[in-house]
Amino acid sequence: MAELIFTDDAGDPRLTDFRDLTTADRRPDRPGGRGLVIAEGTVVVRRLLASRYPVRAVLGVRRRIDELAADLADMAVPAYVTSADTMARVVGFHLNRGVLAVAGRPEPLTADQVAAGARVLAVLEGVGDHENLGALFRNAAALGVGGVLLGPGCSDPLYRRSVRVSMGNVLRVPFAPVREWPGGLDRLRADGVRLAALTPRPDALDLRAFRRSAPDRVALLLGAEGPGLSPAALAAADVAVRIPMAAGVDSLNVATAAAIAFHELTGRG
Amino acid sequence: MAELIFTDDAGDPRLTDFRDLTTADRRPDRPGGRGLVIAEGTVVVRRLLASRYPVRAVLGVRRRIDELAADLADMAVPAYVTSADTMARVVGFHLNRGVLAVAGRPEPLTADQVAAGARVLAVLEGVGDHENLGALFRNAAALGVGGVLLGPGCSDPLYRRSVRVSMGNVLRVPFAPVREWPGGLDRLRADGVRLAALTPRPDALDLRAFRRSAPDRVALLLGAEGPGLSPAALAAADVAVRIPMAAGVDSLNVATAAAIAFHELTGRG
Repeated sequence: MAELIFTDDAGDPRLTDFRDLTTADRRPDRPGGRGLVIAEGTVVVRRLLASRYPVRAVLGVRRRIDELAADLADMAVPAYVTSADTMARVVGFHLNRGVLAVAGRPEPLTADQVAAGARVLAVLEGVGDHENLGALFRNAAALGVGGVLLGPGCSDPLYRRSVRVSMGNVLRVPFAPVREWPGGLDRLRADGVRLAALTPRPDALDLRAFRRSAPDRVALLLGAEGPGLSPAALAAADVAVRIPMAAGVDSLNVATAAAIAFHELTGRG
Repeated sequence: MAELIFTDDAGDPRLTDFRDLTTADRRPDRPGGRGLVIAEGTVVVRRLLASRYPVRAVLGVRRRIDELAADLADMAVPAYVTSADTMARVVGFHLNRGVLAVAGRPEPLTADQVAAGARVLAVLEGVGDHENLGALFRNAAALGVGGVLLGPGCSDPLYRRSVRVSMGNVLRVPFAPVREWPGGLDRLRADGVRLAALTPRPDALDLRAFRRSAPDRVALLLGAEGPGLSPAALAAADVAVRIPMAAGVDSLNVATAAAIAFHELTGRG
């Protein structure tokens, strides 16, 4: 069992990792200038504990720490138990989920590692909005997408808000940057992956018709709401696909459009 | 053309409708104690102007009002032109979309009116979150859903945040309350509508199999994330349907799950 450490001192130096969370993602003292990975709430903390991420500590009110007893059983991490008020003073705001965990960042995966074995991949360009990115990972996990590749302009999936909105699924769905854009995608094609660009363009292939072509492996290219995919990314794809939509309506939110496409492409039914 | 009225007085009594927007939804001086309908930004203002809602006034910076010239051309509403600073003082915060419109609430539709002629309907229970409700209307509009029926526990689609998140689609997709719940749904069945309850239950019918059964008309029952549909609502449905999901993952956000189901049920391909 993780060691339970009771403290009621908001200035306790052992709680430094949890201090002033609203600015924690800008901490310059970590490798690469990035913050630690923060998990909030029982569900997300549980996912962090089960992940490959090196957990440094857990902080929570007694009831939440007790809920995590089985998850903490075999882990050599300190679990700090305190009151809701002390927690609020440490993190800088009232946290109604009652428990936090912090982890360091493990060695990033490579695009090859993420792609290996995935039947359906998401490839993102310009998805800079933390909530959209988190929602997209949540949808990827729910709908069986094997990995996410990040092109230029994407934000960091390990940013605190993305971790939360994803419900911890950024810790489960493997991701990696694509170093050369969009040229690096050619390696996927060489491995038998079909590159399908999602676009609202009316001349694109209906997603359902694409599904019926039964591609073995698919990488779905997704651009940000508004600008969409760059001309270079569209040109790098094997096929442009679209979600049939009612006339005169703006495109869907990127995470929602992705969910529909994931549903079509991962389903076997 | 709407009358252009230039003002730089934040205390101008003609701007009362726009004052202190963060509390405007709690204005008790309107019929039913409800606030006015507020549209923010060019896209949503345009939708409000094109709707059946009785527009009272428009307020914006010159550039935004000019963008709306064609939409305002045949309307007898005052369009107040002011500076961004004065606007901020009137509404109570800085509004980066630069234009607002307010409308009164028209006579509500009845469930029968909403259902008439719709091939696919959404029927909501307990969707109290304003953002989820707004997102759901946006998805309904994009994917061709003909109307939304609101069971108990749903919030008001005309709440300011829902209008914004829906991108004005609460003003386009007709909606009405279901007065008797769930008994009122029997009227739909009598009109040849199949009632399908969306649920994560593993014994439910795969959405794709349900689609292949080619129901003429469908009402999709959706509950809030977390609690889901009540036992009474599930029992009132003709069939329970589910989205195939990866093992061990929480359910999807309700608006996202709805989008996938709308896509399956409205598509003809």
